[in-house]
Amino acid sequence: MLATDRFFDPDPAQKAAALELYALVHDLPIVSPHGHVDPSLFSNPERRFDGPVELLIQPDHYVLRMLYSQGIPYEVLLSKEEDPRHIWQLFAQNFYLFRGTPSGVWLTHELEAVFGVTEKLNADSAARIYDQIQAALLTPEYSPRNVFKKLNIEVLATTDSATDPLLQHQAMRASGWDGKIIPTFRPDSVINLAVPGWKENIAALSEVSGIEVSDFKSFVRALEQRRAFFMSLGATASDFGPYQPTTEWLSDQAAEAVFQRALKGQPTEEDTARFLAHMLCEMARMSVEDGMLMQIHPAVYRNYNPDVYTKFGADKGFDIPVATEYTRNLHPLLERFGNHPNFRLLLFTLDESTYARELAPLAGAYPSVKLGPPWWFNDSLNGMRRFFDQVMETAGIYNTAGFNDDTRAFLSIPARHDVWRRASANWLAGMLVRGMIDREEAESMVVDLAVGLAKKAYRL
Amino acid sequence: MLATDRFFDPDPAQKAAALELYALVHDLPIVSPHGHVDPSLFSNPERRFDGPVELLIQPDHYVLRMLYSQGIPYEVLLSKEEDPRHIWQLFAQNFYLFRGTPSGVWLTHELEAVFGVTEKLNADSAARIYDQIQAALLTPEYSPRNVFKKLNIEVLATTDSATDPLLQHQAMRASGWDGKIIPTFRPDSVINLAVPGWKENIAALSEVSGIEVSDFKSFVRALEQRRAFFMSLGATASDFGPYQPTTEWLSDQAAEAVFQRALKGQPTEEDTARFLAHMLCEMARMSVEDGMLMQIHPAVYRNYNPDVYTKFGADKGFDIPVATEYTRNLHPLLERFGNHPNFRLLLFTLDESTYARELAPLAGAYPSVKLGPPWWFNDSLNGMRRFFDQVMETAGIYNTAGFNDDTRAFLSIPARHDVWRRASANWLAGMLVRGMIDREEAESMVVDLAVGLAKKAYRL
Amino acid sequence: MLATDRFFDPDPAQKAAALELYALVHDLPIVSPHGHVDPSLFSNPERRFDGPVELLIQPDHYVLRMLYSQGIPYEVLLSKEEDPRHIWQLFAQNFYLFRGTPSGVWLTHELEAVFGVTEKLNADSAARIYDQIQAALLTPEYSPRNVFKKLNIEVLATTDSATDPLLQHQAMRASGWDGKIIPTFRPDSVINLAVPGWKENIAALSEVSGIEVSDFKSFVRALEQRRAFFMSLGATASDFGPYQPTTEWLSDQAAEAVFQRALKGQPTEEDTARFLAHMLCEMARMSVEDGMLMQIHPAVYRNYNPDVYTKFGADKGFDIPVATEYTRNLHPLLERFGNHPNFRLLLFTLDESTYARELAPLAGAYPSVKLGPPWWFNDSLNGMRRFFDQVMETAGIYNTAGFNDDTRAFLSIPARHDVWRRASANWLAGMLVRGMIDREEAESMVVDLAVGLAKKAYRL
Repeated sequence: MLATDRFFDPDPAQKAAALELYALVHDLPIVSPHGHVDPSLFSNPERRFDGPVELLIQPDHYVLRMLYSQGIPYEVLLSKEEDPRHIWQLFAQNFYLFRGTPSGVWLTHELEAVFGVTEKLNADSAARIYDQIQAALLTPEYSPRNVFKKLNIEVLATTDSATDPLLQHQAMRASGWDGKIIPTFRPDSVINLAVPGWKENIAALSEVSGIEVSDFKSFVRALEQRRAFFMSLGATASDFGPYQPTTEWLSDQAAEAVFQRALKGQPTEEDTARFLAHMLCEMARMSVEDGMLMQIHPAVYRNYNPDVYTKFGADKGFDIPVATEYTRNLHPLLERFGNHPNFRLLLFTLDESTYARELAPLAGAYPSVKLGPPWWFNDSLNGMRRFFDQVMETAGIYNTAGFNDDTRAFLSIPARHDVWRRASANWLAGMLVRGMIDREEAESMVVDLAVGLAKKAYRL
Repeated sequence: MLATDRFFDPDPAQKAAALELYALVHDLPIVSPHGHVDPSLFSNPERRFDGPVELLIQPDHYVLRMLYSQGIPYEVLLSKEEDPRHIWQLFAQNFYLFRGTPSGVWLTHELEAVFGVTEKLNADSAARIYDQIQAALLTPEYSPRNVFKKLNIEVLATTDSATDPLLQHQAMRASGWDGKIIPTFRPDSVINLAVPGWKENIAALSEVSGIEVSDFKSFVRALEQRRAFFMSLGATASDFGPYQPTTEWLSDQAAEAVFQRALKGQPTEEDTARFLAHMLCEMARMSVEDGMLMQIHPAVYRNYNPDVYTKFGADKGFDIPVATEYTRNLHPLLERFGNHPNFRLLLFTLDESTYARELAPLAGAYPSVKLGPPWWFNDSLNGMRRFFDQVMETAGIYNTAGFNDDTRAFLSIPARHDVWRRASANWLAGMLVRGMIDREEAESMVVDLAVGLAKKAYRL
Repeated sequence: MLATDRFFDPDPAQKAAALELYALVHDLPIVSPHGHVDPSLFSNPERRFDGPVELLIQPDHYVLRMLYSQGIPYEVLLSKEEDPRHIWQLFAQNFYLFRGTPSGVWLTHELEAVFGVTEKLNADSAARIYDQIQAALLTPEYSPRNVFKKLNIEVLATTDSATDPLLQHQAMRASGWDGKIIPTFRPDSVINLAVPGWKENIAALSEVSGIEVSDFKSFVRALEQRRAFFMSLGATASDFGPYQPTTEWLSDQAAEAVFQRALKGQPTEEDTARFLAHMLCEMARMSVEDGMLMQIHPAVYRNYNPDVYTKFGADKGFDIPVATEYTRNLHPLLERFGNHPNFRLLLFTLDESTYARELAPLAGAYPSVKLGPPWWFNDSLNGMRRFFDQVMETAGIYNTAGFNDDTRAFLSIPARHDVWRRASANWLAGMLVRGMIDREEAESMVVDLAVGLAKKAYRL
């Protein structure tokens, strides 16, 4: 059974304060402005989830990689022929690997809060728990749309390629369903010339936008068209995952020359780097014009393990962070738009050495810059504590953007927000018992951290 | 009202120990060996502070940048025409932005300890508090000299350009006042060839030193003359803020060649970088000879926001840190002087990744190297905890230099030292209740951290 | 007297849990799979330790550097002519420098646990304590072999050059003594072309292996021969200390060309860097074949202080860390062997910014990669807390390798393992009282952290 005071510091005074603060946000609806849930789950009211393995293990790269790291092969875990009960049994008998990890916390929470499983998952209980989940998933109560309501989600943003026609989002709207699910504009596949299939992506962009992309100017117009289309379906944000957050302004001629070389399939490495740097600036310019929030999540070496990538594809736990730098890299962009009242830039990092050194000073000075929550590997109790510790004194909480779950594991959303809400309450309680803030301030801050700051940053 | 046990960990045993340790240092006079208070405040006994806005808001870039980051324009905040009561009201209604920040802590402390304000600052109380401060400032009790005594400052160091004739310091001495205020020698404007107006600065150096600077040798002689003059007015330290702490020895000919190109207004980028690297070595040589402490505070991208800089000048919150490196950069300097018994080098950083990795190992080995306290953005409760955590196990406290407030906000000095003294007491209490040190050790260490180490490092 | 609850957090609930967990591991034998104890201490049963100064001060660079950093010259500390009682007195009167440091903790533990000294070491007690230790050392009870048993060491690994004939290890075995001491294969002196005396080292390699090293192929064969020989004396691991963990595959021809230039004494800087990068790959290949664990400890600027190095030699406290990078540097090696079931790579760092950013993601995904414990400057209570905090949520404890003491200070081994066991118990107790793990999990994890994970990683 999940303890009601879990994750709070043990000191009785701090714990009591944390419990009181947490009570103020425990029942608030979930605002999930950035994530990777598959919208097709919700476009058809008859849609059902697959079984426990297809739902909880196979799409979750956090879970997969931990099992793989202990020698359990993807050939088994990801097999379509393997009996799912066997995979579940393997998972259950290795569930001890997740002790003290966020995945362990989330899965335990999901099993109890969503499926009512209060037994500990291990080799012995595996089959019983499988049956219990499987039985629930067959009932209409567990349709994705009903679970969406059960999870108390007020708004959920997906992440969608610039070339995506957003058919699922359109179907959802057309169906008259009242769940609020909005797209997010992610153009990495067309602005990064090194992406495999870039030419095909440009063709897709031409088709979906109705604008023949034949030069840099038409490329920009097509992107503007897509942004407007995304916004028409509720999008309020764009998202970028460059290898490094380098920004640079190219002249029109230089941008055109690079684009032409790319169309001919002959961009140089320098072309690719400078074009992406320029496109971040260009996209900032569009954000100033159309008001979409710009999000940058840099510095991941994607698909690091070529064997795994070749056999099993992307998102299998082999995206490894690298060090990054914001101060110098963002200067060309911020020099132009940093003070602009219409510009809003949300920065994320996996390189925590930048929290206190670069990100908090930037967010604590520029009106356009806010900081996203601890991301990915740092979306954890300790990661949140380090974020509060290293960011808040310089930036203040009002230059941050609350929480994102950033997940493709739909059922883990409440568990992730619960960790954030508990971590926030505990942090504020720590400041309260140390006389840094008073109770009235803590009560207002805990609500802002849970939902207010996210709504404000994403204009939801 | 400020709680007497504020900032201490909530565990009763640790808090009791912290309170006892803190009681030993609470009333000790303040030793402030590094800061930016304007000496002209004290040269004329009739001088008075300006009003609350001119005193507490407009000169404080920590305060300004936070307000600016939330969209409050500098056009209003820094306006000379604006009614100061309006600016104060804006500040007060946005004071919630400083929740959990050091500026919030310092301002609350100042208002209560200096002006007796115990109301919380907000939109409602703003006008009353303004009147209370304003009324106080008009009384002789609140003259800068009387406040200096009231704040219990034993010694205060200012920071002064190498070309500064130190007229204010001379006037203070001539007036017979017994407040101890000493200059610090900061030659950045003449050793950094890229500073705007470098040639004018060299002309000023010639004039103030009485040595015609026409070549590298006379440049060095003029600097030596200035150091001696600063020391005659009590200076015990020099201070340097290079972009990176690179050091390198140029040959006499090479130094001369660069200097001649600079005089002709044609230094290359490489000239500028290597000349500064050489001058750090040259200045270390002078420290060996004259005994002045050498301080290095590197790795800040100054005046990062060109719009703000152009309209409102320097020190408006847009100095953003960058990553730095000490091990390799300081090697040429330490190779020559690191073991010299007359050499003393005090290092600061905004890049906390260097604390445990580079700075503590250097300070824990070289007799000449000591570490300055957590600086600027890290001059905060959490910043101090990280410093204690990451530095002390390797360097030991006796290779650190106590506290600097490094402030231009005169009234915040006691608040800043109080945070340090409380953070020190709490850290030592934590080690005491964990059996790392005993009570006798903790009692001696808390006094050394409060005043002893600073006096020793700066020879005060 | 050492407190039984030392190093535990003061909260009563957490402390009680920590005490219970610690009780489970307090008496477990010590597994020390990586260190630098001199094997000649144990090859002859008649061997005795030297006096207190030769035993506890002169060989311990952690102690020496702290004294040196406060101006106590190596000319005195390391003198052979100086009366050891004078050196001991100097040490004792400066023992306050070690307050709050790991060396202070270890020395206090050693004095009490090994010699029964319960007085505090200071100027007054110095002579009494010296006599007490000296008297003990003259008794057979304190022979190295008897102390090995007294310290409850189950297995101890030394670190040995690839060219070492391992005569001491052979003599130990031949003597029939049942203490388990095994070598570790460290080939830095032959794979790093920039090492002074590289040619002599190659000659020694030829001699000791019986394979005439005249080209790259025979070099590789000689190394394989040495690995097999080390394994025949119980070695299960190899160890590498490159300046950076760069890896790269050279073609056979390129490797041969570099090797020939090196034999002629003319390798370029690039040759040296690329050859080392290639040899790390080559050594990984050998690990795949012979099953030895591969350990990499990078990023130290060795012998940083040329004056001290020239006069007093290596290991005098002037090895200073530099920043490092694993993600990109290890890619060529991991691309080839990362998924191989026979490959095992153990990574260490002094650059803690890589813990959460690079090392935990790599160890949390690759079956071959595990993480070594906090190393050297981070082998401390705070260093361990930071390691648990930043590594475990992503990697899980089962992708780490327990503890290494990595020491040349034989008597400090139990003290160092005790700090780790206490830090582990305290960390687990913190998770237990926060509801992250349950008691059964904590009890299993504390044993794994104390001995199980180390045995598994090193196959002991």
